[in-house]
Amino acid sequence: MVKNNRNIAMAQKSGLLFLSIIFILNCCAQINNTYNLMPVPAELKTNGNNVRITNQFRVSIIGSANPRLYAEASRFVRRLSNKTGIFLDKIGFVTQKDSNAATQLQLRVSHPGRLSLGEDESYSIETASSQVIVTAPTDLGAIHALETLLQLVSTDADGYYFPGVFIRDSPRFAWRGLLLDVALHFMPVDVVKRTLDGMAAVKMNVLHFHLSNDQGFRVESKIFPRLQQVASDGLYYTQEEIRDIVKYAAQRGIRVVPEFVVPAHTTAILTAYPGFASVKRDYHLQRYFGVFDPVMDPTNEKLYPFLEKLFGEMSSLFPDQYFHIGGDENTGNDWNNTPHIKSFMKAHGMKSTADLQTYFNKRLLPIITKCGKTMIGWDEIFQPGLPKEVVIESWRGNESFYGSVKSGHPSILAYGYYIDLIQPASYHYLNDPIPDSVTLTESERKLVLGGEATMWSEMVTPVTVDSRIWPRTAAIAERLWSPKTVNDVDDMYRRLDIMSLQLESLGLRHNTYKWPLMRQLANSWDTKALEVLVSVIEPLKIYERNEGDTMYTVFSPFTKLADVATPDQKVPRIFSKQVDEFLSKPSPEVEKEISEKLIIWKENDAQFKLLLKNSPVLLEAASLSENLSSLADAGLEAIQYIHNNKNAGLDWLKEKQAIVTKAKQQGGRCELQVVEPIQKLIQRAAQ
Amino acid sequence: MVKNNRNIAMAQKSGLLFLSIIFILNCCAQINNTYNLMPVPAELKTNGNNVRITNQFRVSIIGSANPRLYAEASRFVRRLSNKTGIFLDKIGFVTQKDSNAATQLQLRVSHPGRLSLGEDESYSIETASSQVIVTAPTDLGAIHALETLLQLVSTDADGYYFPGVFIRDSPRFAWRGLLLDVALHFMPVDVVKRTLDGMAAVKMNVLHFHLSNDQGFRVESKIFPRLQQVASDGLYYTQEEIRDIVKYAAQRGIRVVPEFVVPAHTTAILTAYPGFASVKRDYHLQRYFGVFDPVMDPTNEKLYPFLEKLFGEMSSLFPDQYFHIGGDENTGNDWNNTPHIKSFMKAHGMKSTADLQTYFNKRLLPIITKCGKTMIGWDEIFQPGLPKEVVIESWRGNESFYGSVKSGHPSILAYGYYIDLIQPASYHYLNDPIPDSVTLTESERKLVLGGEATMWSEMVTPVTVDSRIWPRTAAIAERLWSPKTVNDVDDMYRRLDIMSLQLESLGLRHNTYKWPLMRQLANSWDTKALEVLVSVIEPLKIYERNEGDTMYTVFSPFTKLADVATPDQKVPRIFSKQVDEFLSKPSPEVEKEISEKLIIWKENDAQFKLLLKNSPVLLEAASLSENLSSLADAGLEAIQYIHNNKNAGLDWLKEKQAIVTKAKQQGGRCELQVVEPIQKLIQRAAQ
Repeated sequence: MVKNNRNIAMAQKSGLLFLSIIFILNCCAQINNTYNLMPVPAELKTNGNNVRITNQFRVSIIGSANPRLYAEASRFVRRLSNKTGIFLDKIGFVTQKDSNAATQLQLRVSHPGRLSLGEDESYSIETASSQVIVTAPTDLGAIHALETLLQLVSTDADGYYFPGVFIRDSPRFAWRGLLLDVALHFMPVDVVKRTLDGMAAVKMNVLHFHLSNDQGFRVESKIFPRLQQVASDGLYYTQEEIRDIVKYAAQRGIRVVPEFVVPAHTTAILTAYPGFASVKRDYHLQRYFGVFDPVMDPTNEKLYPFLEKLFGEMSSLFPDQYFHIGGDENTGNDWNNTPHIKSFMKAHGMKSTADLQTYFNKRLLPIITKCGKTMIGWDEIFQPGLPKEVVIESWRGNESFYGSVKSGHPSILAYGYYIDLIQPASYHYLNDPIPDSVTLTESERKLVLGGEATMWSEMVTPVTVDSRIWPRTAAIAERLWSPKTVNDVDDMYRRLDIMSLQLESLGLRHNTYKWPLMRQLANSWDTKALEVLVSVIEPLKIYERNEGDTMYTVFSPFTKLADVATPDQKVPRIFSKQVDEFLSKPSPEVEKEISEKLIIWKENDAQFKLLLKNSPVLLEAASLSENLSSLADAGLEAIQYIHNNKNAGLDWLKEKQAIVTKAKQQGGRCELQVVEPIQKLIQRAAQ
Repeated sequence: MVKNNRNIAMAQKSGLLFLSIIFILNCCAQINNTYNLMPVPAELKTNGNNVRITNQFRVSIIGSANPRLYAEASRFVRRLSNKTGIFLDKIGFVTQKDSNAATQLQLRVSHPGRLSLGEDESYSIETASSQVIVTAPTDLGAIHALETLLQLVSTDADGYYFPGVFIRDSPRFAWRGLLLDVALHFMPVDVVKRTLDGMAAVKMNVLHFHLSNDQGFRVESKIFPRLQQVASDGLYYTQEEIRDIVKYAAQRGIRVVPEFVVPAHTTAILTAYPGFASVKRDYHLQRYFGVFDPVMDPTNEKLYPFLEKLFGEMSSLFPDQYFHIGGDENTGNDWNNTPHIKSFMKAHGMKSTADLQTYFNKRLLPIITKCGKTMIGWDEIFQPGLPKEVVIESWRGNESFYGSVKSGHPSILAYGYYIDLIQPASYHYLNDPIPDSVTLTESERKLVLGGEATMWSEMVTPVTVDSRIWPRTAAIAERLWSPKTVNDVDDMYRRLDIMSLQLESLGLRHNTYKWPLMRQLANSWDTKALEVLVSVIEPLKIYERNEGDTMYTVFSPFTKLADVATPDQKVPRIFSKQVDEFLSKPSPEVEKEISEKLIIWKENDAQFKLLLKNSPVLLEAASLSENLSSLADAGLEAIQYIHNNKNAGLDWLKEKQAIVTKAKQQGGRCELQVVEPIQKLIQRAAQ
């Protein structure tokens, strides 16, 4: 799962092309959604009963709720106060005493929600005269309603109010997850907590916590302390911290599903306990990223009591029903090259290392069961003979996903939600877990639990990770929550832009992290020329940034151009639309807007060159800036030809195509995002 | 200490005026300090031996160092890599194996440093051909050298290098502290850690950790768990977290001195254990800020065993020699109004509550001593009969400070370093612990241990606190480290501006926090008009923002205009200098610069009014924006008169003075910072 092979990468790239066609088809199906909600609720009507927010605002909770609702209602009050600046000091904490039915916000809950898969998360919101009434079977639904309410807050000349609405809402899928990989690069507790805040804001309900890999084992073990002592670089969560994170998540209605990968991706565990390795060698934490040979020895009978103890201890920290054992990306080399393992395979009639892994999984399953947990693993564990209760998480593509569904396994889709691959939100947004092209029976549909955005952390650090998760993950959250028919890409982007601000008010740093990094790169307070460049570039996509898996290690600086560059930026997206508009129906207004941008890009290089004098680290971006300038210049020429209705001729075209080709080259592991639209202008000019 | 009374506030205000004269006197004593270091080292010479930084860069440690130096050297490598973008992946961690004398950076240390007051923190840096040699008696000095080196990193066309220097450096004062108040508003662990990073960067060495007050008790007690259960709102550090913070600080050469205030400011403790109160009442955590009556009952013999157990437990968490017992701001009312306490005072011949507090302190001292600690308290505990080993921290002014010094108490100066009061860095910078006006004997001088910046947290939250601490605290750090003769305010500000960037590269958010808050206030991505206004305002100074101590509680929103406004901004500071320059020696260039600013301010209000339509929370700033506009308009008129060498006349002056008067009014608990210079222009125009 960490590392798609190149075929998958290519498949995803063509998927991108395919989806860009869908994008065009969809962009005109405008959905009327006045309130900018994300995810869009299942049903929304306006009713005109606006409820004003004043310092008299109070909340009451009626019915039987899990204590988490009191904590969340209190947090809601502080957030509402922070957002509006209204002093709500008279409410410190919402408590059981707050059950007066006449408050401005009334939460009616039938029974305490259990934090488990499939629990009722539905809610309704109805404004009546000067009162908002939230009704929900469980507090989990009421918590979602609070997030919806914060998004609904509106303004007019008189101040703030909740607009008059009737909303009836419930999720399309029960499993709406984010995988946070803290093994490849460790993420401190505060990063995890703010990520949970963001997840709750978009109604996601599973943190898939990827806690061990070749680069480190990230949880304190009291039974096997060498795991944190020699296999974490000191970067791990204490058990107290894990409990704190689990509690923090639970308060927000989020389950935490831990993942401890076995039998491969276990260099860290084998560094601490080399006796469980298939091959005797000097094990050290892996500093590179990729797929490696070290793997546990399934023929070692001592391995299973070890795993039973370790997983027993680890699973006791996580109350959730599910326990992820990874199971992916075993090269098989260490098994094939080890005589006693080969003999074992032969003796047991195993034809391949896949058979041996199935054997291992079958030994593992009762251990997980004994821990009281349900096992989950990646595609690779989906082999004949695997008991049907095991959940399969699919990263390798639709074929494997529907294969596991049709075989009767509850399944989770990760394929298409790999947010580490720097693809646009639109790509993930249109990746429906049950697309029209797939035919499933009713019972098969029920096996599609949902999906997970996956934040693998090869190329991110605590400083940059927010910018890889947000805001794009909000689009995935909507895909997993909202009705299938909610799929207007333009409207998604419009709301995503607003959601991005709401996410940063929770403390997420997907926007702000850029400026200190740019100032450091520019070695100056003045970052204007760098900002212009950064606004039109992206880090290399899919797995291209870390060429050959050899460029980066866990110790590399992730403070460079590719780290301030973010996926799916607004400037190139809007520019591209404007160019399409211009080419289909030229107007002086659009021509002016396009030209103004091209002039800025053309002229920026001179300013950027001044920056370089003081900033050697930016030299790797010099070619990008030059190419942008030449390309913009060519674009301006093209517009002149088009404007004058003249054909630029083939010689001109050839010359400009050379510029386009050059502009497609990477610089500082980034690429320009405006080549395609400018190329279109050039081609039109010579038609 | 939390709360100066109004007299003190006034004294500080006039101090400000006094110092602004010093400012003018000093501004021409330019110091030649090419390398932008902060604090300025005791001795610096250039030697021409630049040492280039390449991916071959290695570090070695020679001699006997505390393990912290290996950790800090490793952290140094990562920071150097992050700053320069140079891949130093071949160094994972600096270890004892790294003792090759031929590396690019060699750290020579004589012996492990003890983390205690007065330990040798000196170091020297000398560049030789392609090698930087750091020599220090202890690793504490070597750690300071690493911070100096990071500040020294320079660039040229060939890349990055350490410039050729010889530096010999040591601190002027041994106690260079920052008080971080986590009682009034709690600060999570990550805030504390990044604050420690900033402190280390400017060579501060004491975190004075203010852990309890009327609003909360912030440390888990296993003996008295009601302290965190009912007296913290759930906002406290576990003992594991305290140990983690202490370890984190120790690695950076920073001591952690805890403060638990007694006998007053104990509403939180009395909420958990009301039996120790002087007056029987229903105790609840205090939600307001200020000085309150609740106080422990020193006549209750059960109090002392309680304090012995509590302080025994608390002091065991903090290895430092010093333990701060507060002792300040006891109103005495609860003692005076309680018959059995009055009788006790009478029976023991006590004339005032101060006498009773001295009695309490004398009972407390053996308890602290039994914990193996040296007691510190605020001025108020400095009473006749107090044993000389007790350290006095002075917040009430120079008189009380030198009083305690001259009485033989080791003393720490906090007065003049109250960074919560929104005063300019120059004010704090020129507040010398041993000013020329004070005559001390050699032995008295030795009793001046140093000083502490105090970050009281009434008006700050985890989001805004960085902007109140940084960058101004770097100026205080320099005052406490550098030679007394280093006092050029202009040069301080020049370097502070650079230091501010270096601090944010550590993750401090004094700059970046503004933008999400401004976007939230503006309810939009477009914050231009708000930025213009915010760049020329400050929150009300001293204690004026929280008028009558009744406006704010711990639950108030600190997400408003006064929270994005930061002290001591560059725009008004530079504008003011330009106006002075213009008035003393008019030139077309300066006139143009001033006029351009005035035009922006004048025209901004129209844009700001557009913002208001969508943002009721900003309405409180409407008058500020209007006043800025009128004021700027008046300034432009004044410049026209001055330019044309015409007298504007008294009628005009009167009219404009009304505008000036109006412009001095607060709006949104903020005030304009450009009134004074524009007033000068107006006055000149009518002269």
